[in-house]
Amino acid sequence: LIFPYSRGFEPWNQLLIIWQTFWVVLVAYSGWSSPFELAFKKVAVEGLLPLDIVVDASFANDILLTFFVAYSDKSTYLLVDDHKKIAFRYVIHLGFPMDVASTVPFQTIFRIFDGKKQGEDVFGFLNLLRLWRLRRVNKFFSRLEKDIRFSYFWTRFCKLICMTLFAVHSVGCLYYWLATHYHTAENTWIGSNVTNFQERSISLGYTYSMYWSVATLTTVGYGDLRAHNTGEKIFSIFYMFFNIGLTAYLIGNMTNLIVHGIARTFAMRDAINKTVRYASKNILPEGIKEQVLAHLTLKFRTAELQQEEVIGDLPKAIRCSIAQYLFHTTLENTYLLKGVSEDFLVQLVSEIKAEYFPPKVDIVIQNDIPTDFYIVVSGAVEVVTYKNGMEQFLSKLESPGLFGEVGVIFNMPQPFTVRSKRFYQVVRISHHHFKQLLQPLNADGKIILSNFLQH
Amino acid sequence: LIFPYSRGFEPWNQLLIIWQTFWVVLVAYSGWSSPFELAFKKVAVEGLLPLDIVVDASFANDILLTFFVAYSDKSTYLLVDDHKKIAFRYVIHLGFPMDVASTVPFQTIFRIFDGKKQGEDVFGFLNLLRLWRLRRVNKFFSRLEKDIRFSYFWTRFCKLICMTLFAVHSVGCLYYWLATHYHTAENTWIGSNVTNFQERSISLGYTYSMYWSVATLTTVGYGDLRAHNTGEKIFSIFYMFFNIGLTAYLIGNMTNLIVHGIARTFAMRDAINKTVRYASKNILPEGIKEQVLAHLTLKFRTAELQQEEVIGDLPKAIRCSIAQYLFHTTLENTYLLKGVSEDFLVQLVSEIKAEYFPPKVDIVIQNDIPTDFYIVVSGAVEVVTYKNGMEQFLSKLESPGLFGEVGVIFNMPQPFTVRSKRFYQVVRISHHHFKQLLQPLNADGKIILSNFLQH
Amino acid sequence: LIFPYSRGFEPWNQLLIIWQTFWVVLVAYSGWSSPFELAFKKVAVEGLLPLDIVVDASFANDILLTFFVAYSDKSTYLLVDDHKKIAFRYVIHLGFPMDVASTVPFQTIFRIFDGKKQGEDVFGFLNLLRLWRLRRVNKFFSRLEKDIRFSYFWTRFCKLICMTLFAVHSVGCLYYWLATHYHTAENTWIGSNVTNFQERSISLGYTYSMYWSVATLTTVGYGDLRAHNTGEKIFSIFYMFFNIGLTAYLIGNMTNLIVHGIARTFAMRDAINKTVRYASKNILPEGIKEQVLAHLTLKFRTAELQQEEVIGDLPKAIRCSIAQYLFHTTLENTYLLKGVSEDFLVQLVSEIKAEYFPPKVDIVIQNDIPTDFYIVVSGAVEVVTYKNGMEQFLSKLESPGLFGEVGVIFNMPQPFTVRSKRFYQVVRISHHHFKQLLQPLNADGKIILSNFLQH
Amino acid sequence: LIFPYSRGFEPWNQLLIIWQTFWVVLVAYSGWSSPFELAFKKVAVEGLLPLDIVVDASFANDILLTFFVAYSDKSTYLLVDDHKKIAFRYVIHLGFPMDVASTVPFQTIFRIFDGKKQGEDVFGFLNLLRLWRLRRVNKFFSRLEKDIRFSYFWTRFCKLICMTLFAVHSVGCLYYWLATHYHTAENTWIGSNVTNFQERSISLGYTYSMYWSVATLTTVGYGDLRAHNTGEKIFSIFYMFFNIGLTAYLIGNMTNLIVHGIARTFAMRDAINKTVRYASKNILPEGIKEQVLAHLTLKFRTAELQQEEVIGDLPKAIRCSIAQYLFHTTLENTYLLKGVSEDFLVQLVSEIKAEYFPPKVDIVIQNDIPTDFYIVVSGAVEVVTYKNGMEQFLSKLESPGLFGEVGVIFNMPQPFTVRSKRFYQVVRISHHHFKQLLQPLNADGKIILSNFLQH
Repeated sequence: LIFPYSRGFEPWNQLLIIWQTFWVVLVAYSGWSSPFELAFKKVAVEGLLPLDIVVDASFANDILLTFFVAYSDKSTYLLVDDHKKIAFRYVIHLGFPMDVASTVPFQTIFRIFDGKKQGEDVFGFLNLLRLWRLRRVNKFFSRLEKDIRFSYFWTRFCKLICMTLFAVHSVGCLYYWLATHYHTAENTWIGSNVTNFQERSISLGYTYSMYWSVATLTTVGYGDLRAHNTGEKIFSIFYMFFNIGLTAYLIGNMTNLIVHGIARTFAMRDAINKTVRYASKNILPEGIKEQVLAHLTLKFRTAELQQEEVIGDLPKAIRCSIAQYLFHTTLENTYLLKGVSEDFLVQLVSEIKAEYFPPKVDIVIQNDIPTDFYIVVSGAVEVVTYKNGMEQFLSKLESPGLFGEVGVIFNMPQPFTVRSKRFYQVVRISHHHFKQLLQPLNADGKIILSNFLQH
Repeated sequence: LIFPYSRGFEPWNQLLIIWQTFWVVLVAYSGWSSPFELAFKKVAVEGLLPLDIVVDASFANDILLTFFVAYSDKSTYLLVDDHKKIAFRYVIHLGFPMDVASTVPFQTIFRIFDGKKQGEDVFGFLNLLRLWRLRRVNKFFSRLEKDIRFSYFWTRFCKLICMTLFAVHSVGCLYYWLATHYHTAENTWIGSNVTNFQERSISLGYTYSMYWSVATLTTVGYGDLRAHNTGEKIFSIFYMFFNIGLTAYLIGNMTNLIVHGIARTFAMRDAINKTVRYASKNILPEGIKEQVLAHLTLKFRTAELQQEEVIGDLPKAIRCSIAQYLFHTTLENTYLLKGVSEDFLVQLVSEIKAEYFPPKVDIVIQNDIPTDFYIVVSGAVEVVTYKNGMEQFLSKLESPGLFGEVGVIFNMPQPFTVRSKRFYQVVRISHHHFKQLLQPLNADGKIILSNFLQH
Repeated sequence: LIFPYSRGFEPWNQLLIIWQTFWVVLVAYSGWSSPFELAFKKVAVEGLLPLDIVVDASFANDILLTFFVAYSDKSTYLLVDDHKKIAFRYVIHLGFPMDVASTVPFQTIFRIFDGKKQGEDVFGFLNLLRLWRLRRVNKFFSRLEKDIRFSYFWTRFCKLICMTLFAVHSVGCLYYWLATHYHTAENTWIGSNVTNFQERSISLGYTYSMYWSVATLTTVGYGDLRAHNTGEKIFSIFYMFFNIGLTAYLIGNMTNLIVHGIARTFAMRDAINKTVRYASKNILPEGIKEQVLAHLTLKFRTAELQQEEVIGDLPKAIRCSIAQYLFHTTLENTYLLKGVSEDFLVQLVSEIKAEYFPPKVDIVIQNDIPTDFYIVVSGAVEVVTYKNGMEQFLSKLESPGLFGEVGVIFNMPQPFTVRSKRFYQVVRISHHHFKQLLQPLNADGKIILSNFLQH
Repeated sequence: LIFPYSRGFEPWNQLLIIWQTFWVVLVAYSGWSSPFELAFKKVAVEGLLPLDIVVDASFANDILLTFFVAYSDKSTYLLVDDHKKIAFRYVIHLGFPMDVASTVPFQTIFRIFDGKKQGEDVFGFLNLLRLWRLRRVNKFFSRLEKDIRFSYFWTRFCKLICMTLFAVHSVGCLYYWLATHYHTAENTWIGSNVTNFQERSISLGYTYSMYWSVATLTTVGYGDLRAHNTGEKIFSIFYMFFNIGLTAYLIGNMTNLIVHGIARTFAMRDAINKTVRYASKNILPEGIKEQVLAHLTLKFRTAELQQEEVIGDLPKAIRCSIAQYLFHTTLENTYLLKGVSEDFLVQLVSEIKAEYFPPKVDIVIQNDIPTDFYIVVSGAVEVVTYKNGMEQFLSKLESPGLFGEVGVIFNMPQPFTVRSKRFYQVVRISHHHFKQLLQPLNADGKIILSNFLQH
């Protein structure tokens, strides 16, 4: 698996990521098997031995690999791919001796030299060194949490489940180990329920261990399996203490996820509720109330389209590129801006604001002070006028229609009301910005004026 | 129940909503009966059979209905009511085969063909397919949560209770089923307490199941009913694991609801506390302290009337409509604005700000720089002046009284102090805006000036 | 206790509040005694009877009183003290019949007519009607929570404890009642532990009840006292269900209180941490680092003195009064403003900003652009100048010293550095505002100029 | 340990802080030993007696010391080091008699006078007065929580663990004490399990006590050790009540810590998610999408470098010092500003903004309106131009390169696009500020112009 890479792997190398993901599976197996083999020695010697050797080999492989993976320097934010630096950084780090120690198959080595099939406890405990590898699983989850391609909720959820399962499994196995090492089997938590429990099947022993472990973790505490001697009592005390912390941690995380998940619904409900209360306290007419509700509902449904909020914090150059991409064609095709210089268009585009309107909402109302004019990007609007209190339909505009420009150019109250017909998007150009842009560009000013007059 | 609608139902059709609500009741029954019939087979064959057939028929009906309900397209936000599109969308969806499978009454069909009254387990488990329908209950609650006509707290509360009840009920029934299928009845959780439990009444069995289930869920774990064989132990382990998650979820939701519910009280207390501490650190006189407290208390009591906060985010056209509706009449009747053009009024209305004052609070104080003038909308104010340190009462103003205009027009410090007499509302017109509006409207300027002079 | 008030009590009448507080004690007693008397009938007939009669009389009194207490109308925010309206509002309300029903001493009346000392269950349950009164305790706590004179934390804490105690007590008593009414005493939760439990002392029975109730609520569930018959099992199921909700509610409230209580510490730590990280990343010199930390620490220690944040949202008139009260004298005594007109001072005061500085921090630095000048309110500053890179001490200023005015008046870079000597407060006057104010007040301008030149 | 300090210790004296930390260890011992000696009297008389005397002596020492430690006055924020004031403040405080009472070794005194080795309960309870000292441990933790040198998470975590351990230990000891004082040993919680428990080893008794105490606190409640008489039942009830509160407090704290710890990850994910959704809804081209993501990722990775956010709230003088320190040299070396007066540089530095850009992002785009010009502080940029749609590389700039100045000085659209090559920092100088600064400094204006022309 180690290629003669001249300058080291980049940390985001595709092969490396696949290997690391596979590696996590191996580590998960290690985390499960180490305590299990300690408690049920027969397994370690027979069933799982070949698998253990394969896993250990993979880990040895991984240690070698670490010497070839470039890392990102913390102060300069640059990638270091010099072999010597990588090696030096890894070797002086605490992790290196621990990585090695967690990989050496002590038991197998001993057995080769000694020749006896002894499943002695010392090797069982040396095996627990392999749990050191779990440190990397934690890193793996941290990376996933920051990766927006994965749902934070499910990443966190899996992590919590893995943590809990590992705790329950380890403690159950250690508790079983305690029972097998007590002098009188009848006076142990399992021996007092199952006679000759050591001669029964592994699956029975494991079920009992897990049952006790889960029942204690969840604080159900049926009381059928319980500490019978001082050693077990002390072990239980520590486990129960640990459980308070774990439970609090689980609940805290869940609360956090729920609070975050519901925040948007709350925000929407609060905004709408506030407006509805305002409307009913002031006895606003139904028409206005409906426009307000339609606007708010649309705003929350199209939250991901709200240009201002989303890209407002980006640097100016990026914002310009986006606006250019989205609205340049529309502006070019508008009658008023036909033939103006490219420079003027570029500058104008960077000043416009995009807005969405639900159907049947007034955008410009008659007699309003002209502060902006609008270009239809999608959807359609209708232009109406009020004469003697009667509403008269004048025309219908579709993209790239322009409205509000009469008021802006003549600096007079808007002569028409403009109302949206379908869900649609407009860009708004500020009166103020428009005039400011025009001043130094006389040629464009003349083109615009002649466009307007011809229209 | 299916009418020959030519273009499909609209999703907000009244009849449809009634039907869907009724449907939720049926699904709730399904959720309850499926595990129950699995555990207590006698019931399935006798008592509940007719009801089951009715429910299955209703579900078949609902599947048909789905072909006639229009849906909202996700990208265009438009309603699709074309029969072919609706059908195509439904049939290619995973939901369709599951809907069908959860509706076919396998047991009844089998019995018709076979002729025997066999309550075999396979049918019990096939019945569990009906739980698929619960998916729709989840959707129902999601819709309710977004519907501002229903309290979020109680919707969520009901949902959590339903979830918990369903979990407890299902697990209890499955646990009973486990006991009835173990070879030695004495070595089961219920058989070790109740001899011949299978011949006892269904209600006794159900009570025991629920008692164990609830005692385990809540982690009370009395220990009187507990797993007696390996199968039951494994089942308990999974249930207890699930319970950690469920408990954390319940607590997380409750915390969220409480945090949200109390947020407003906290905000109020914090604001008032901060001000009181400021006042006492600076040893402010009692009079000022009381004005501050009165203002803050009013602000939080009339939070739903705060125009700025509530409608500040709405588009300009809607805000204008609201201001027009609320304040147009008051402005029209003010002496200063009598006879001005409608255009001017419309523009002025859209620039005004509404404010509320508690009783006995100064709004304008003598010698202050004139930045705004005020029109009384409701309540009353009194105008006083200080001469040689003595307060002299000058007059009392009620709606549509005007004050502060002398300072604004002559651009001199306010000559009077104006104090609120009762809880009331004013509109504030900015000096700056007022002048800006007047400039291009000479005729109106003259009318206002002559109004002012006549007054 | 009822005085012939002509227009009804005001709700904040001192006597009324004392009475209501006393009343809460009585209600608490009712809440405790009603379930207790149901379970332990002997007590109801003997020990507590006189007390019950007194309490019932007080409640009758309270019902009468309600007819005389004015209330605040919800739409007009006005106090209604018309007897007829008060009575009408109370009588048509659901509360009235329930209040009456919860006050009539059914048992005593029955005994008077019947003559027998029968403690029948029906009266025990009628007694539970008194729990209706607890509704008012809830209102009492809601009022306390909004009253800033009481700590929110402790109010909420007491409320939660009261709720929990009441739940535990009521359920314990009902559980005991269940045991006393089961046909075979040996097959009840208490009878299986204590033979002839009904002849034992009340205190023993109550202890057992409470012990079971608490052990179940807290989900400890030792299992020594547990349901022995179907009735008790069903009762336990409901109680355990209720407990999930109660526990979640308690935890949710506690979390909320903690989150709120720690928010300020978090804000402080975050702000300081952020700055320290910035300083160390940019390797800022120690001197600047210390000034920054001193500033931040002071800012959080004197949070209640931060004028801007605290009174920024108040209406302008109130803000003016406060500034007038705090800074008028200081301004008057400043050499530059001696002899200027009162009008000018009033206007200037309303434009100033107050700021606090820790010791040894630069306020004005040499060559800085003059945007503000400062008046020392308390503490002292020293004026230094840099010549050829050497710091030269020039003078020390105490209240009402003025600095930064040279740069402002001549519109040139600040000629001196000014550094704080002790923790102190300055007011800052903006260059811009100052000039704006001076323009229309020529006389004052001349006075200031002559003041400056004389100085 | 008491030196003849003439003016009292300052509270941040190094020796004092070491002493106080050592003191906390002694208090921790007191907290552990007081309940332990009450329960296991043999220990108090034999093993721990010398240690107790040493601890008491240290406490006496501390009381004396308190008279010499200066304190900070609450209203003036000044340090009071007058001996009389310190003594007066301490003596009139409730703490003084309690401190003394918690230090006197009543038992030892009594034994000296009486001569008998009586470990009577009254002395055991008098010993509990020593728990008063724990009040100071609380203060110690409060101080640590506000000290940014220590992680808040771990400080809080230790505090919670200490609290829980202390509660468990105390309650366990008191429960054991209850058992030793009950008339029939067989009818106690421990006596019913262990015959002659009083003659067994202390470690056995302590293990049983702790086992019960932890099992009850965590609500596991196995039921093997449980209350056997009324006294124990009542004690258990109170303990279980207390446990609800403690558990809720632990969970609340954990939730708070988690919510706070994850807040930044959430903020990052939300911001990126929002932008990604916007980009995909608007089908932005890959190039722009990548620039946006690179910008956002960098922003969160370099959050501690964001000048605006971090130092924006500091007073102007401090902000100037920082900008001066960071950017003065860079500005001085820029060709355009060579030879300008120091005054001008100082003023310019205080107006600049620092920004970071990821590699390959456009900073200035061609034809953009010139609002700012930029100076490269670190990293490098490349200048390109578009001609006939082709990109032409013009030059590469490194620190202290200047770009965007052509547009600013001639007030014309930017003639080039400038793109970052490596992660780097620029300072941005606003067009507007630059011109404003130049006006009154004619000499500098000429220098800059000649610099520009020579270039």
